[in-house]
Parts: sequence; structure tokens; C-alpha cells
Amino acid sequence: MTQTPEKIKQPAIFGGIHGNELTGLYLIKKFLKQPHLLERNTFTASPILGNLKAIEACTRFIDKDLNRCFDIESLETVSDETIIYEKQRAKEIKEIITSNNVDCIFDLHSTTADVGLSIILVNDHPFNLSLASYLSQINPEVRICSFFEKDQPTSFLNSLSPLGFAIEVGPIAQGVLDFSLFQKTENLINEILNYLDRWNSGITTSQSEFVTVYQKLMTVNFPLNSFNELNAFIHPEIQNFVAINPGDPLFISFDGEVINYTETQELYPYLVNEAAYYAYNLAFHLMKKNRSAITDPVGWVKEHNDGKR
Amino acid sequence: MTQTPEKIKQPAIFGGIHGNELTGLYLIKKFLKQPHLLERNTFTASPILGNLKAIEACTRFIDKDLNRCFDIESLETVSDETIIYEKQRAKEIKEIITSNNVDCIFDLHSTTADVGLSIILVNDHPFNLSLASYLSQINPEVRICSFFEKDQPTSFLNSLSPLGFAIEVGPIAQGVLDFSLFQKTENLINEILNYLDRWNSGITTSQSEFVTVYQKLMTVNFPLNSFNELNAFIHPEIQNFVAINPGDPLFISFDGEVINYTETQELYPYLVNEAAYYAYNLAFHLMKKNRSAITDPVGWVKEHNDGKR
Repeated sequence: MTQTPEKIKQPAIFGGIHGNELTGLYLIKKFLKQPHLLERNTFTASPILGNLKAIEACTRFIDKDLNRCFDIESLETVSDETIIYEKQRAKEIKEIITSNNVDCIFDLHSTTADVGLSIILVNDHPFNLSLASYLSQINPEVRICSFFEKDQPTSFLNSLSPLGFAIEVGPIAQGVLDFSLFQKTENLINEILNYLDRWNSGITTSQSEFVTVYQKLMTVNFPLNSFNELNAFIHPEIQNFVAINPGDPLFISFDGEVINYTETQELYPYLVNEAAYYAYNLAFHLMKKNRSAITDPVGWVKEHNDGKR
Repeated sequence: MTQTPEKIKQPAIFGGIHGNELTGLYLIKKFLKQPHLLERNTFTASPILGNLKAIEACTRFIDKDLNRCFDIESLETVSDETIIYEKQRAKEIKEIITSNNVDCIFDLHSTTADVGLSIILVNDHPFNLSLASYLSQINPEVRICSFFEKDQPTSFLNSLSPLGFAIEVGPIAQGVLDFSLFQKTENLINEILNYLDRWNSGITTSQSEFVTVYQKLMTVNFPLNSFNELNAFIHPEIQNFVAINPGDPLFISFDGEVINYTETQELYPYLVNEAAYYAYNLAFHLMKKNRSAITDPVGWVKEHNDGKR
């Protein structure tokens, strides 16, 4: 477990890690023009654009998904002329983070899936869970998901810092802006920055002892035909965060055959019908709904400090 | 006015004229595998895929929008090595249509805009209006739009035949399939083919004397800043087929300024927030809601024949 910090000194907010997810991208553009919006008493957060070439082209990526390039292997590969753009950009971003002493990263994404305002944790840091829990408490549209697998390194941007998480909002088509979803996302960022500012000022935010976290257990692929072509629709009963149980329908094949869920436990679909996943035949993730205890980061720090004295 | 035919001998249905609009594309793939679905007593319709390279890449187009390549100039340009793919494909499609004596074209599109099941006419042929009117009569989700401008040639696929029209369904993200929307679109095609079959058999379908047609009057562009960058959201009150009147809000700028509608007449937005339009800064079309008289094609043919005798 990484030590919970006493203060967040230099948070950063990313948009456009995927160049066709305009909600986060245009929010960062707004912050770049109006940096005072990211000022608080105890810090000024940095707005950073992700995949510059993909933003220009309004595509998810140019050569490789940038949000799969932050693993140690990619970051440590020696650069040469044939290196792909996103591996270069991942190294640039790591350099920006290091040279600016960024200590907390929020990464804005949007999705064609109807997920509302969702948070994706990639570690089990109590500070992140505590912040996410607070956000879900003040806004019931906020749901917390975790892609964390113990001892499994991730290649997401958020692997560069133990503090912070990705925010995944939807539904919205790629390449499109929606005023309401933009506002909701901006409000969420504001609440996050206010929380960080209170944290730095030693003001604790009371919250429940437990929080619902949807933990990723597996992915479900589309059924394919013998030519490896897509062969089914996601069943219309499959909805983000709505429980599926053994025997429930998952797919309807193009021939009308219903394909049922054969696992033995109740699980919850997430990122259902995300456009970018079709390239990988990925229909949705399946999450286990957990009641997670919130380790109070304040208490955690106090205990830590007491231990030091 | 082109003569109304006594019989439709060889209708064709296109999908994938835009390679990332999967609803029509997968419907055509289904018909290619199960051609009996397109058989009727008096004809068998042909399923045809549009932009083969864009379908492969799951993009709208490769070099140029194929559905803007069916103007006479593009079709008559002499081919050379530098010619762009879509101009070649437009010529191939024209050749397919000519050599197969296709006499009626239905072109399936989908959109990120919430338009339901909409029909786009590109001429004022009474047969097309009559068929569209029938479809709107049996299904209130069907709305009829017309992009027809007298004496203005179009570059759409549907300019290759006076009979038939485009079908634009939504909302759905690019690169995504939705079972319900697919079913609705397939049902619409079935109704069309049944109508053609009845027409060929001399069975008339009773309908109203008038029908609502949304006639395109103008397009509305996004406000841009001094760097020619997008500078506003479409106002959330702007909805497809919901009237706007003088003084109503059209946009909210990124600085929060509301930009109002200054035209003097009530008009109706169509294709609001279509992802592909962002490349052209096009926010939506504005349509005039007309009560159009339906010239009965049966009567039209009878009169025409009487005249010949």
C-alpha cells in the first residue's frame, strides 16, 4: 500500500487520451483557456491534453491505444525511428508528470455505453476509494468501478500515480459534444478539486463506512461465426449496472438464437456496447457488486504519523 | 416529373454507403446470407454493400464521403491512377445498377441524432411520397423529410434512380449495433417490400390525402471562435422534429452565452448532433413542416395511360 499523502500538491487532469472522446477533451480545452477554474487555496491543478495527433484527427488513436501504453515495458522501450506515435507520447506524458511533480491524476473518458458518471479505480489506495465514495454520496449518478487486480500491473495512464482515477461518462457517441453531460462532468471535477483542497486544509468530509464498488471479474466477448465475424447482438435486457443471473439472456444471434448466461453468480455488466470495444469483439465487462469498507485516509495518515513519532 | 412505373422490377437495398453505420450494413449482410428474405411474388430485391474499404476499416469513408460522389461530374470524371477510392466505387455502383436494371433504390443510414425512423426524399416523385406516407401511417415513428430542391442535382446515391429514398435511423453511435433499432429497420424494409409487391399486383393501399413532410430549408453551423474552432454546444432544448420559434435558444457558447434563433418562421431541427457533421461545423438542418398533398400514383398512372390511348 502506498502511503496516503498529507497534502496533494500538484494534481493534473487529462482529457483526450482518446482523441474522439470530446467531453473530456473540450473540458481540458476550457481549463487551458481559463486556468483560474482549476485554482484552489492549496493548489492549482494542471490541465493536460492526451493524444495530440488523435485529437487532431478526431480518432481514438493513431497507431495504438495510448491508454494501453503506460506499462513499464512500453515506457522503457528505447526509442527509434520506427516507434509508434502513442509510445512516444506516453513517454512525453510520463516526463511531463515527473518534471512537474504531479502527484494525483484524473483522466477523463467518455463512452457510448449508458454508464452515467462512473469512476474507474486501478488500485486499492484508501484515498482514492474515500474520494470516490464521497462523490457517490453527494451524487447518486456516480458509480464506482474497480479494474484493480492485485499484483497485476496496468498499462493505463493512472498507473503513473497511486493517487487519482479515471472518470468514464456516457452515453455519448464518439466525436460528439453534449451540453448536459459536459456540465455534469465539469461539476464532478469541481467537487473533486474542492475535496482535495479540504483534504489539504485538514478538513475531513464525513462519509459512510462502506461503499458499493463494482469489481471487474471478467470480460464477455461477442459470439463469432466460423469466419470469425460478429454473429450476435447484445441482448436488450443487458444494461449497465443491472444484475444478471444464471440463465439470463446475454446475446441474440443474427439467426435469432438467444445465448444465456452460464456463470453461477450474480454479476453486473459495465461498458455495454462501447463502440471502441467492437475491434476486440468485447461486448461488456462483468463486475461483482461489493460492499467495500472505507479505510479512512485521515485515520490512516494519523496512525501512520503516530507510528513514526 | 418522371413517369410513375406500373411495376417495380428490380429494387435494390444498400447498406454501408458509410462504413461505420452498422445498422444498415449488418442488415445487408443478413440479406446477403438469407436472400429469400428479399423475395416477394413479383420480384427479388438485391442487397448491395456500399463503401467496401470503409466497411473494412469501420470508418465513414476513406478519402471522400461516398454519398457525395453520385453527381454527374464525379461519375463522368475520367479515371486515372490518382482517383480517390470513393469516386471509383461510385462508378462501380452505377455500373451495378445499370447492368442489373435496378429501378428502385433504398439506402440505409444511421445517425447519432435521435431521429427515430426517418425517410429522406431527394425528389418529388409521387410514388416515393405515397410509399413514405403509407409507412408513416402504419408506424408513427416514421417521419418524412425532403432534401429535394427543384432543379438542383444531388450527389446522393438516390440520385441514380427516381424511385426509392434514403432511410436514416437513430440515435446510435457509429460502430455500434443495437438489436431494437436493427429490428425496427428490418421491419421497415419488410413493409416497403410488401408495399412494392402489392403495387406490382395492382393492389392499392388506401391512405390519407395529405401527409406531413419536413422540407429542408437551411443548415445551421456551429458558432466558431476567432481561431475557427468550435465555440458552443447545441442548446439542450434543440431536439429533432421539435419546433423552434424566433427568440428560442440554439446554442450555448463555451463562455455560457446563449445564442438565439433569429429567423422569422417556425422551423424544425433535423439530424441534431450528428457526429459526422462536426467535420463541417454543421450543427443541424432546419426543416419547414409542410402538409403535402399526395398525388395518388395509381391515378397518376391511369391518367397517363388514358392519355396515351
